[in-house]
Amino acid sequence: MTRHEVTGPAHRLWNPAHPPALTVDDGDEVTFAVLDASDTLFAPPATAAGIATFDWDRLYPLVGPIWVAGAEPGDTVEVEVLDITAGDWGWTAVLPGFGLLADDFPEPHLHHWDLTGGKYADFQGLARVPLRPFCGVVGVCPDTPEPLTVVPPGHFGGNIDCRDVGVGSRLFLPVQLPGARLSIGDSHAAQGDGEVCGCAIEAPASVAIRIRLHKDRRLAAPQLQTPGPLRAGIDDAGYYATMGVGPDLMAAARDAVRALIDHLGRTYGVDPVDAYVLASVAADLKISEVVDAPNWVVGAYLPLSIMTG
Amino acid sequence: MTRHEVTGPAHRLWNPAHPPALTVDDGDEVTFAVLDASDTLFAPPATAAGIATFDWDRLYPLVGPIWVAGAEPGDTVEVEVLDITAGDWGWTAVLPGFGLLADDFPEPHLHHWDLTGGKYADFQGLARVPLRPFCGVVGVCPDTPEPLTVVPPGHFGGNIDCRDVGVGSRLFLPVQLPGARLSIGDSHAAQGDGEVCGCAIEAPASVAIRIRLHKDRRLAAPQLQTPGPLRAGIDDAGYYATMGVGPDLMAAARDAVRALIDHLGRTYGVDPVDAYVLASVAADLKISEVVDAPNWVVGAYLPLSIMTG
Repeated sequence: MTRHEVTGPAHRLWNPAHPPALTVDDGDEVTFAVLDASDTLFAPPATAAGIATFDWDRLYPLVGPIWVAGAEPGDTVEVEVLDITAGDWGWTAVLPGFGLLADDFPEPHLHHWDLTGGKYADFQGLARVPLRPFCGVVGVCPDTPEPLTVVPPGHFGGNIDCRDVGVGSRLFLPVQLPGARLSIGDSHAAQGDGEVCGCAIEAPASVAIRIRLHKDRRLAAPQLQTPGPLRAGIDDAGYYATMGVGPDLMAAARDAVRALIDHLGRTYGVDPVDAYVLASVAADLKISEVVDAPNWVVGAYLPLSIMTG
Repeated sequence: MTRHEVTGPAHRLWNPAHPPALTVDDGDEVTFAVLDASDTLFAPPATAAGIATFDWDRLYPLVGPIWVAGAEPGDTVEVEVLDITAGDWGWTAVLPGFGLLADDFPEPHLHHWDLTGGKYADFQGLARVPLRPFCGVVGVCPDTPEPLTVVPPGHFGGNIDCRDVGVGSRLFLPVQLPGARLSIGDSHAAQGDGEVCGCAIEAPASVAIRIRLHKDRRLAAPQLQTPGPLRAGIDDAGYYATMGVGPDLMAAARDAVRALIDHLGRTYGVDPVDAYVLASVAADLKISEVVDAPNWVVGAYLPLSIMTG
């Protein structure tokens, strides 16, 4: 087993033509210096006014690609997360046209977080969001004739924004091309299931992983194994959940989040856009039922332990 | 505060014309004898062959309606679950044309569970499903000119099949008609988020609740407060999660469940229809991200502590 370090350069597209930054063998460990998704454009002293005119081409800097020796289509690459240390600053933005409630929140908004200490991010004295860092983007390179943007995830993984890919978890990715060409990025200090406003607590991070190769294990899409409870230290005080009910899961998810934003306003005095940001970094979307035709139920679950106001 | 008991008769439609079974005041407690959703038709010795020809009109027997004195449209009725004791038998059916994967599983199937002891339900020696009883149906009567079937939930609650409405939880329902006319039914001994095959561990139960009336608290849909962690005693060993990735949440949910069924087959030797049943009673659907257009991620999470085989 060999330990490697990768610090750059970043790439910003899924493109089989990228030269590998590194070649690893089954069992090797790699430490990455991961940039935040804005490549520091949204770090202090950036403002909401500034993000209306930023350069989208600088988004989603990825570290990699890592060539996994012997990996072929039809195999699976396993990424075990050994350690993640986020930086001491983070941001959450509401970007016009982006996010679950893009129609409700058309104006740009930018929230800065102080992550000093590495345990919690205070939110206006009203909430304390426990930090649970992970990478939003972990993917093998898709077999694409044209370079692809990083925003949409796919069966190859990529920008899956799954908050459970934290320390101790093992993510399984179906290899699409020889060498797998693994890249990671979009480090998050905390996020709720759904990432409803479109952003987590976006922060740079140092990320250590172990890479394993499973020959002839064919998956249709990513799979994940977690080492323990998903919300330890977060769910102790229970949840307040709002529900969306109706014949479309997306509309039900929107209704649930709107109701949670309303609840945060009435109960804690949080402004709507701030509640949207807080829901994105701390509340979880789940499907309660998807069988009682024609109406489904989606819940937005706020962990009560985080509320301090 | 008064304690009441309601044992019947059952009603099977949402219908404002139903005479109240009972009138309660704010703060009263009521104990219900809740029938299973099949009104014992699927209890032993029922077989899969038998359920192909059952009488749908006997489904979803509800206890109630309870008239809440002083409740008016624009108010909220709170249902606090004080205690639930399930019976010692349960069933899970795959009904043709019903369930998330109705196209994959067109044949009727019926699984019987032994709930004796009240802690766990053994599944073929391969899994041990912890019992966490709740009522799938808790609703106030909708304002409807025609009687409505119980299957679809609505903003009035009803068949929301939310597994977190267990002991200690408080469900908030928006009153639609004078008196609220609360009914409950469809008791479940265990269920995963999504209830993917269309059934939980369906079992009769004795259910005790406290009813509170919140005047002038107007909700758009049900809301819920839980007393603590959602999966205590279930999530200790972590999860194995399969993902569906794509532009439609429903299709992504189907793909995630199909991958979990495949995983249960490969890893534990579970037959597909049995894996579908196990997923329905024990695995959870959640939305990892719903913002990275055009592709969303839905996960099907299997708690590893339940697997014993």
